[in-house]
Amino acid sequence: MQNFVFQNPTRIIFGQAAEKKVGEQTSLYGSKVLLHYGGGSIKKYGTYQSVIESLEEVGLEYIELGGVKPNPRLALVKKGIELVEQEDIDFILAVGGGSVIDSAKAIAVGACYEGDVWDFFAKDITIKKAMPVGTVLTIPAAGSESSTSAVITKLTGMYKKSISSELIRPKFAIMNPELTFTLPNYQTACGAVDIMAHVMERYFTNTKNVELTDRLCEATLKTIIDNVPRVLKDNQDYAARAEIMWAGNIAHNGLLDTGRVGDWASHGIEHELSAIYDVAHGAGLAVVFPAWMNYVYQHDLARFAQFAVRVWGIDPDLKDLDWTACQGIKKTKEFFSSLGMPVSLPELEIPADKFEEMAAKCTAAGPRGNFVPLTKEDVVKIYQSVLN
Amino acid sequence: MQNFVFQNPTRIIFGQAAEKKVGEQTSLYGSKVLLHYGGGSIKKYGTYQSVIESLEEVGLEYIELGGVKPNPRLALVKKGIELVEQEDIDFILAVGGGSVIDSAKAIAVGACYEGDVWDFFAKDITIKKAMPVGTVLTIPAAGSESSTSAVITKLTGMYKKSISSELIRPKFAIMNPELTFTLPNYQTACGAVDIMAHVMERYFTNTKNVELTDRLCEATLKTIIDNVPRVLKDNQDYAARAEIMWAGNIAHNGLLDTGRVGDWASHGIEHELSAIYDVAHGAGLAVVFPAWMNYVYQHDLARFAQFAVRVWGIDPDLKDLDWTACQGIKKTKEFFSSLGMPVSLPELEIPADKFEEMAAKCTAAGPRGNFVPLTKEDVVKIYQSVLN
Repeated sequence: MQNFVFQNPTRIIFGQAAEKKVGEQTSLYGSKVLLHYGGGSIKKYGTYQSVIESLEEVGLEYIELGGVKPNPRLALVKKGIELVEQEDIDFILAVGGGSVIDSAKAIAVGACYEGDVWDFFAKDITIKKAMPVGTVLTIPAAGSESSTSAVITKLTGMYKKSISSELIRPKFAIMNPELTFTLPNYQTACGAVDIMAHVMERYFTNTKNVELTDRLCEATLKTIIDNVPRVLKDNQDYAARAEIMWAGNIAHNGLLDTGRVGDWASHGIEHELSAIYDVAHGAGLAVVFPAWMNYVYQHDLARFAQFAVRVWGIDPDLKDLDWTACQGIKKTKEFFSSLGMPVSLPELEIPADKFEEMAAKCTAAGPRGNFVPLTKEDVVKIYQSVLN
Repeated sequence: MQNFVFQNPTRIIFGQAAEKKVGEQTSLYGSKVLLHYGGGSIKKYGTYQSVIESLEEVGLEYIELGGVKPNPRLALVKKGIELVEQEDIDFILAVGGGSVIDSAKAIAVGACYEGDVWDFFAKDITIKKAMPVGTVLTIPAAGSESSTSAVITKLTGMYKKSISSELIRPKFAIMNPELTFTLPNYQTACGAVDIMAHVMERYFTNTKNVELTDRLCEATLKTIIDNVPRVLKDNQDYAARAEIMWAGNIAHNGLLDTGRVGDWASHGIEHELSAIYDVAHGAGLAVVFPAWMNYVYQHDLARFAQFAVRVWGIDPDLKDLDWTACQGIKKTKEFFSSLGMPVSLPELEIPADKFEEMAAKCTAAGPRGNFVPLTKEDVVKIYQSVLN
């Protein structure tokens, strides 16, 4: 186990009617709110109405900025920054999934910075100040509701880049599983893959002696594996929706990182896909992650075999760890497929012609990933391996 | 899963040489420190020296108050409160295990209160203010380093009572597993039982649909079960000491409570033992917990069978859940015994003559425990069941 510092002060307010607390929570930090959201779904299903009623109840002013798209865009972030300045806004409330929250975090950083907010994404500049952000989560997936990171896409040049800082960790996360009842199955499945990917990025590590966090990772993965098929069958299964929502938070709140170094190559490889082809992040990960596993598993057969046994219940062949390890990868891929997720690039209508370009961007700062550092050539091979 | 609010803002600084950060951390909150500790062990093994050097490095003044005993006493708490007032102290630094930290928390509350600090323990008064507390942990057991609770013993009348408030959650917890290398095996084992008890109090619940937290509990228990025998063999096994230390925190930082109601009768039943006979809390729990399990397990055979299968690896007899459940209890008791812990009252030299008195105190506020509410008569029977 490595030395670490861990602190996650985000206040989680979880359960039925939790969104009715948003006014009370917001008023602890601000008086004029940028209400940031995505498309029409929060208006269609009543979440918007509950939120504004709660804000009005405590006398908070708010200015709206909707229109966040999946793979949230820099252009809208810049619009948000302008609004904050023009309207003297002192708090950003994100109502939505990871894209809305990430967009809100980027606005929070940009509004406290003289220059171009993209500087923080493109260069390695330390974030020194950010506005407070609060969240009402409607899609369990990104874990952004209590994480320190945000990912934004710049359409010019098709770049998808991330920032990370304790300063952008949301003050509160309001999590009502009922708000996820209306998620289409495809989006639920994308979220599940993203959650599992967050755990697996941490699980596949070279750090030794990480038993507790290994087991916590396995606990989180097994919970997702048990509960996602239930909600795909019954969208209003509160118990299963609640398990997924809480697991999605645990997967990315920093706890599962403690004392270990994650890999994160798969996220990088996927980001290139969604930057260019605008595919859902979870769907891209469903293709990339098993491909990455197949490419690297021989680096640590014991760890991949442990994954197979503990997460997927494989009866191990201890004389053949390679076989055992492969069973876990096979199960992962089959599970993604069973959720209706793609497991090859053609299923996402992604052709082979930009592999070199994507791999070059992915490895622009040097080999990608910590478990096995991947060169540009490795990344090309991983893309090629899922051509069918 | 029940609705919940969860927030744990304690900053965890974990790993080798972490105690060298204590000055820097303390200076974020105070300028004159009450340095609170127990017996001579922190002086004997160098922890004291490292701490005062770190405080002096950043120019912090400190006043010492040592002498905290296991089952920490109200009298010393009162002395601490006096010192804080006399010396204009603005921060309390606990260097030690749960007893020292609990004593520090009680001082933190008492110093902000006009009346007798025991009021908060004896009556149901809400804590409205507390001084900031920081911790350097030397015994993984109580989880008090980032918890909201404290337990204090009043010798007059032999009362052991607790308080709980977000206001007494420590600002930081400095956790260096090396500081636990010198713990005697008996104390390591007591700590392990206490950690397991914290998890099991939460595990045995009537709340339905708590899969994620069930699995996180099981992960934490299995980590303790794997690693404690290792440190009993090799006191300086850093990896195993680190697993235990981090697990001890997770066990009691509030995460494993989320969305579920714990039992806590065993803690209550044990507190009566340690209040009167001054036994180590962990040793008392090693006797009480399996006795409680045997008394209540038929209330939910499936849950006890799940515990047996998932925590202890029992091959279940699905036609005989009673048998399966009992195997888990048997394994728990055998494990405690294998650590050198007592599993009966005679091993603690506790006679039968005060069972009625202890049971009456334990149930003075009504039936004890949430999984199965226990009457005075139930508690007497549990004491009687471990007479040999």
